[in-house]
Amino acid sequence: MSLISTHTVAEHATVSSCWIIVHGKVYDVTDFLPEHPGGSKIILKYAGADATEAYDPIHPPDAITTHLPKEKHLGVIDPNTVVKIVKEATAEENIRQELIATRPSLDEIVNLHDFEAIAKAILSPKAWAYYSSAIWFRPRILRDVSVVDWSTTILGQRSSLPVYISATALGKLGHPDGELNLTRAAGKHGVIQMIPTLASCAFDEIVDAAVPGQVQFLQLYVNRDREITRKYVQHAEKRGVKGLFITVDAPQLGRREKDMRMKFVGDSGVAKVQENQSGIRKDEGVARAISSFIDPSLSWKDIPWFRSITNMPIVLKGVATPEDALMAYDYGLAGIVLSNHGGRQLDTARSGVENLMEVVAALKTRGPWPNPKFEVFVDGGVRRASDVLKAIALGASAVGVGRAFMYSFCAYGQEGVEKAFEIIRDELMMNMRLLGARTIDELSPEMVDANALHSHVGLTPPDNLYNTTYQPLALAQFKTKL
Amino acid sequence: MSLISTHTVAEHATVSSCWIIVHGKVYDVTDFLPEHPGGSKIILKYAGADATEAYDPIHPPDAITTHLPKEKHLGVIDPNTVVKIVKEATAEENIRQELIATRPSLDEIVNLHDFEAIAKAILSPKAWAYYSSAIWFRPRILRDVSVVDWSTTILGQRSSLPVYISATALGKLGHPDGELNLTRAAGKHGVIQMIPTLASCAFDEIVDAAVPGQVQFLQLYVNRDREITRKYVQHAEKRGVKGLFITVDAPQLGRREKDMRMKFVGDSGVAKVQENQSGIRKDEGVARAISSFIDPSLSWKDIPWFRSITNMPIVLKGVATPEDALMAYDYGLAGIVLSNHGGRQLDTARSGVENLMEVVAALKTRGPWPNPKFEVFVDGGVRRASDVLKAIALGASAVGVGRAFMYSFCAYGQEGVEKAFEIIRDELMMNMRLLGARTIDELSPEMVDANALHSHVGLTPPDNLYNTTYQPLALAQFKTKL
Amino acid sequence: MSLISTHTVAEHATVSSCWIIVHGKVYDVTDFLPEHPGGSKIILKYAGADATEAYDPIHPPDAITTHLPKEKHLGVIDPNTVVKIVKEATAEENIRQELIATRPSLDEIVNLHDFEAIAKAILSPKAWAYYSSAIWFRPRILRDVSVVDWSTTILGQRSSLPVYISATALGKLGHPDGELNLTRAAGKHGVIQMIPTLASCAFDEIVDAAVPGQVQFLQLYVNRDREITRKYVQHAEKRGVKGLFITVDAPQLGRREKDMRMKFVGDSGVAKVQENQSGIRKDEGVARAISSFIDPSLSWKDIPWFRSITNMPIVLKGVATPEDALMAYDYGLAGIVLSNHGGRQLDTARSGVENLMEVVAALKTRGPWPNPKFEVFVDGGVRRASDVLKAIALGASAVGVGRAFMYSFCAYGQEGVEKAFEIIRDELMMNMRLLGARTIDELSPEMVDANALHSHVGLTPPDNLYNTTYQPLALAQFKTKL
Amino acid sequence: MSLISTHTVAEHATVSSCWIIVHGKVYDVTDFLPEHPGGSKIILKYAGADATEAYDPIHPPDAITTHLPKEKHLGVIDPNTVVKIVKEATAEENIRQELIATRPSLDEIVNLHDFEAIAKAILSPKAWAYYSSAIWFRPRILRDVSVVDWSTTILGQRSSLPVYISATALGKLGHPDGELNLTRAAGKHGVIQMIPTLASCAFDEIVDAAVPGQVQFLQLYVNRDREITRKYVQHAEKRGVKGLFITVDAPQLGRREKDMRMKFVGDSGVAKVQENQSGIRKDEGVARAISSFIDPSLSWKDIPWFRSITNMPIVLKGVATPEDALMAYDYGLAGIVLSNHGGRQLDTARSGVENLMEVVAALKTRGPWPNPKFEVFVDGGVRRASDVLKAIALGASAVGVGRAFMYSFCAYGQEGVEKAFEIIRDELMMNMRLLGARTIDELSPEMVDANALHSHVGLTPPDNLYNTTYQPLALAQFKTKL
Repeated sequence: MSLISTHTVAEHATVSSCWIIVHGKVYDVTDFLPEHPGGSKIILKYAGADATEAYDPIHPPDAITTHLPKEKHLGVIDPNTVVKIVKEATAEENIRQELIATRPSLDEIVNLHDFEAIAKAILSPKAWAYYSSAIWFRPRILRDVSVVDWSTTILGQRSSLPVYISATALGKLGHPDGELNLTRAAGKHGVIQMIPTLASCAFDEIVDAAVPGQVQFLQLYVNRDREITRKYVQHAEKRGVKGLFITVDAPQLGRREKDMRMKFVGDSGVAKVQENQSGIRKDEGVARAISSFIDPSLSWKDIPWFRSITNMPIVLKGVATPEDALMAYDYGLAGIVLSNHGGRQLDTARSGVENLMEVVAALKTRGPWPNPKFEVFVDGGVRRASDVLKAIALGASAVGVGRAFMYSFCAYGQEGVEKAFEIIRDELMMNMRLLGARTIDELSPEMVDANALHSHVGLTPPDNLYNTTYQPLALAQFKTKL
Repeated sequence: MSLISTHTVAEHATVSSCWIIVHGKVYDVTDFLPEHPGGSKIILKYAGADATEAYDPIHPPDAITTHLPKEKHLGVIDPNTVVKIVKEATAEENIRQELIATRPSLDEIVNLHDFEAIAKAILSPKAWAYYSSAIWFRPRILRDVSVVDWSTTILGQRSSLPVYISATALGKLGHPDGELNLTRAAGKHGVIQMIPTLASCAFDEIVDAAVPGQVQFLQLYVNRDREITRKYVQHAEKRGVKGLFITVDAPQLGRREKDMRMKFVGDSGVAKVQENQSGIRKDEGVARAISSFIDPSLSWKDIPWFRSITNMPIVLKGVATPEDALMAYDYGLAGIVLSNHGGRQLDTARSGVENLMEVVAALKTRGPWPNPKFEVFVDGGVRRASDVLKAIALGASAVGVGRAFMYSFCAYGQEGVEKAFEIIRDELMMNMRLLGARTIDELSPEMVDANALHSHVGLTPPDNLYNTTYQPLALAQFKTKL
Repeated sequence: MSLISTHTVAEHATVSSCWIIVHGKVYDVTDFLPEHPGGSKIILKYAGADATEAYDPIHPPDAITTHLPKEKHLGVIDPNTVVKIVKEATAEENIRQELIATRPSLDEIVNLHDFEAIAKAILSPKAWAYYSSAIWFRPRILRDVSVVDWSTTILGQRSSLPVYISATALGKLGHPDGELNLTRAAGKHGVIQMIPTLASCAFDEIVDAAVPGQVQFLQLYVNRDREITRKYVQHAEKRGVKGLFITVDAPQLGRREKDMRMKFVGDSGVAKVQENQSGIRKDEGVARAISSFIDPSLSWKDIPWFRSITNMPIVLKGVATPEDALMAYDYGLAGIVLSNHGGRQLDTARSGVENLMEVVAALKTRGPWPNPKFEVFVDGGVRRASDVLKAIALGASAVGVGRAFMYSFCAYGQEGVEKAFEIIRDELMMNMRLLGARTIDELSPEMVDANALHSHVGLTPPDNLYNTTYQPLALAQFKTKL
Repeated sequence: MSLISTHTVAEHATVSSCWIIVHGKVYDVTDFLPEHPGGSKIILKYAGADATEAYDPIHPPDAITTHLPKEKHLGVIDPNTVVKIVKEATAEENIRQELIATRPSLDEIVNLHDFEAIAKAILSPKAWAYYSSAIWFRPRILRDVSVVDWSTTILGQRSSLPVYISATALGKLGHPDGELNLTRAAGKHGVIQMIPTLASCAFDEIVDAAVPGQVQFLQLYVNRDREITRKYVQHAEKRGVKGLFITVDAPQLGRREKDMRMKFVGDSGVAKVQENQSGIRKDEGVARAISSFIDPSLSWKDIPWFRSITNMPIVLKGVATPEDALMAYDYGLAGIVLSNHGGRQLDTARSGVENLMEVVAALKTRGPWPNPKFEVFVDGGVRRASDVLKAIALGASAVGVGRAFMYSFCAYGQEGVEKAFEIIRDELMMNMRLLGARTIDELSPEMVDANALHSHVGLTPPDNLYNTTYQPLALAQFKTKL
């Protein structure tokens, strides 16, 4: 492998010839620019330079070698040409470090909201919070609740909680160990983790971190190149993964307006580079970038093929209607996840918990419920055991929790996730006792009053995409004169 | 034409004899005062003086010559008598200029709300926002959405978007090129523009700015003098206009309380002039002023006459009930626009999108829907592609957008309008993919849950007229002692 | 009549012997203390002293002579013993005078809300505002609305507006001419005034101020002593009053918590006087005070008697249910006023406009509606012509407006009331045109959508009594150390 | 009894050997630590030291001698070894004293909200407030309401109000006389008091404070050791208690997140002690602590036993469903209290007043209502007589008020409670007159409109546990650098 000087790399800093350095190796990413899921602009920022530091927190280590053809691996950077830069911590980073140093002790965390506040993911999706609050409990009394058991099975696998860890991306942005925090805590507590396709740790790293017998599922974005998908799925099955959750509500990534807004904060150089290039409109990048990683052509016709390549139970993640729930059932799948993708994809899509009632009603036309052949899960905005119990009372098998666990490791690493499990466990014990339900099976529709769920009123549903996704979206700012 | 001195003009500065100068010519507007659509007071402010600067942004250049009888065209101002005034920019204007100089770059605009904030039209009508939010999506999955097409036809004309530019008045107040910004952007992007009767550019200017094949419609306020209307309509048809939208929800202009409030900011001189005159109560001006420009006697009896003077398809703009929708259908018209005039006319009138469901249900009693002989449009407060898709799913052909486009050219001229088209296009692509609708035809009632629409609750409907039209209406102020 | 020195009067300053001076005459009010409608405490404040200044704004001049037995009229104060006190204006009064001097010109008033803000009656009852907003218009188009007529008849009397002036008490508190402002403005504009039993002007003063042919009604609180009531009613009929409105929703005055709170601001002396007296609990005063002025025993049994003493049409003011509406009809009365007494009596009583629909539905079981023998009126919180039109569309004959007119004369005297009439007139013209209703008769239930009225939701109904009656009620204050 | 030096006691200051001093006696509480209802941590704070001052306001004097085996009573503290500590008032206490000294006079209290504000129990549960507001009155007119009577019977006992004093714990925290304030005021005014199991005064003290003929009920937490419960109940019956209210909605104390949060304010020493001990996770303490005081195994099977040990009428306190109401009826009990435990146990449990309608409807299937054999009570958040009247109109016998009375004695002792009774009495008189109901029996379902109750909307139901129980719960705080 040839030795390349930093000077030579620096000469390839445009859209028509773009080289970058990652982990000491030089790559020609010119052709890859329009395919990059995160858009070409972010790569161009490091055109002709070292991108490692930006690359690491959001990609598995092998992402670039896997996706870039061998002939684009140009060589190794000549260490003699590297000028060591003493990285100065930004003011923002200093504040962050100070906050970490002064975060409250883990003992002080009394509920999952606390994690969220501390993780500074200030505003979470309100959809579930609203809908779940619109469901009211009808607690029963004078049942002997000295022993309460909240363990259950999910796709035939034992779970200590009626909750699984749902897939969330880019864990290393919040903690250097990324998704491994979840794996380790889950192993210790008997909780099932769903491994995300877009994990920041490599798939095998995450599987390797599991203890013997620990159950893991796989969340799948289907690649346009089905061969890549086939290999990925079969590799997962070979490594012991017990369930395949195919994401079906993201034929295109939602417009991340917050991300778009971010780009204009102290980042004018890039725009200029691109403006001088190639006549391609900047904002077309996103549409083209999805062409390989997420396949908008995915359809029901592909389902038999998935069943042919794996024996894992297959679950569709992101179903929103009874019509599609029945199709999934009739295609012989193992279940569905009702979700509105955390409110981040299609604004004013109904939340999973609202669709739950209609979906279960429809599935009852295929036989008694619960149905051992088919499970319904729900995710989105869960913060309380009461949210979990309501969904189960209405017919769900279990509930996915993604961001709350992510917040817990962002702030405290593995210990934070364990604390989150304990909080859920304590709340489950208390709530089940107060409800008069001794086991998950005893949770029944009679224990909730969901009449208000359909009225869809109370607060005008906000334009989440605009107001609250990730962070409040500021209006475009007038340039300050300074 | 005689030469008149500024001194002579200045002697005619009362209600009983009122001359003004426009574009260097002198006009006797005494008899016209009570007829002026904007009220006599605003003219009296310039009685005996040059009104050009106030006249230009809100009238087509030929308005005064067209509407004032020839005998009132008194002559040309003697240039030797004109004292050149170096106009000092007001503090407000300076601030405005500074804001324009420092507005964010067009790249930073990520949605139509941004235009609005920047255009300083701070508070837009909330009606649609509320109602459309009360409709929820029911997205379908696993359809091949690699190719999505949002083009459609409107009254038989191709449109690149399921959206047309609705008529808004007085464009030059926001940008010197006024409505031409819309024409030029629409021509480039295949969008249909509705030309307003009260445009600040002349009708022919707007038509001349179109590219070959570009489709334009005409919005019509019916004049008490039907001959003027006949000429105007037939001229439009001759110039190639493809559809006639007769406004039927404005037999009288709404009380513009904000405008009324404005009059009392630093403008006490005028009131005094009028008080000393003629015994006519000031506030009767408005009622009388509408006598020629907008005819309150317009009724169904006039419809056959309209059909006799033009072959353009005729659409009634401003229908609000199924009863009237059926009458329009039975009169053989081509369609209707459901509208509450942007919430600016009759307070607590139901919004177009709410009436849509009832209207479509009624029209289905006349035959299958969509009906090739009759189209239903909706306008009012649209800011998101999701708003558009919901209306179409419920049975509309297309949606009119007025103020959002006006805001976009106020802030950025033609480029702003083009950016607005691109944002709508990007949102349509994303939302249609996420909904599982590949074409406009695939949008169906099953894709939305509009149950909450009729409950009319959530937030107490505000008194829009009082609180939000145009700008928040301040309470009458106590005079400051300074 | 004997001459009494101020010194002698001053010796009678306790509950067991309480003399006061009013208009230079001395009265022994000891026995009257527990009967005083405003409570004994307020009189005791002036025990042994001159009460004229406090007496005048809230009583007709003849109130004391009428209600106090002749033997309690002790004599005339000896002028030689009176020490002239130069009254120093309070800081508050100074501010008030300054606000009056700097109030906006009447031209600047564009709607009735403006009067309210200026009259500093900061928070008005929200009930109607909410309910009326929950009714939506269904405007009709293409009717010839060049001529619009909003005049009507009320109890057979012509009225230039579908609005009458409802009774409000204590007008002189706001303006020295009190209710006469209403009489004079009403006479000039052909509006009907309802004269309140608790007017601050004498009944005859108000009748005398009317122009020939001006229509006036009488609002009646029924006295325990029916003879007093009989004389009052027959006197009114003789003076030409055309309708009798008997208040039936106030068998006891509501707890005026705001008034009770007021007493503790800078007024500790009185409490001490009373504490030292007679063992009577202070707060029992109110209950006993109503014993003569408002009779809690009033019942249906009294109705025939009323019919026997007058030929005026009799209307029950303060009906809230269809059951009672039917009884009123069956008793042969002329009509009812649906009212919740402005939200000031029974908290969370439903508002008049909500009851209207149920009441009209019930009355239709007695015959077609409108029924020439029986009229239904509504009052409470009306601020817009749109409020009026909605009530009429739902079956009311006319709407009572009380506080808005009171606010208008508090701020501007008679001119303010006239301006208020003009605003209502202008709003009626505009709204009727926009609705497509040319006369009051053309207003029909089809023109409104009142489906949301019954859901009673939107905003949690506030505890009006606590939060908003008259003025926001401050919590009890800790004494300041100063 | 042996004499023990403070020095010796101080040597037993750990989890493995924990001695404390209470009222001059030394106790070994080592084994009791995990059983303490308030958790072990609070005791450990006083390990090896004098706990009297912390013990007194929250325990009856005999609590420690009753619950601790004789052999753990070690002896008496040697007075010679005690160092007199001059207790310095804390800044907080000083502020409290100052507030007490400057509290408004009792005359200024005009409603129960005032007590609450002054008692600084700033945020009370919103549940009832919301639900009760969602019920609207339908007042009847023209009934002779000169005499109004609001007395009633509760479980066959005369009560001067349709309100009883519900059990609240730990009264001495607010006032040195604790629950005796309630007993004395109740005796004077003919109101029934429910004595709480967790009173801070001894049971016999409370009974002794009653006047002859005064009615008291008993609230019961059932002990795992039924013998203790049997003795307690039979002792109560012997002392004259007239009704037994068994709490059935608290098989486990709710997670008191506010209390948990409190522990971390200036209290780090304790945590350290515990951390160094015994490997037991701190947060498991609560679960274990309930093992003796509150029995989670309590079930319907226990009901016959209760009936066998007492002749008092038995009422289940904390029923939430019609199903359980019918079971209580069929088990031959005397009644139920509909309650959601003040919103403090199970979040989003429906409030008592909402369940009332369903429960009464179900009980009507067993015979006419009201049913002399079975009474339904409601509690939670009552602040107004209007709240009381609505519940009775819907079928309740009477309403329990707990916190409002507690607030009233916290701020003013016995006099405060009496004032609260008077306020309720005055409000009842006024509201019954305005409603047209002369007696409690005349209150009927027709007098309320409860249609909105089931819609469960208006405001999104808040997460009470998180936001408002006791005090607003602050988020976990970052440690301040100081």
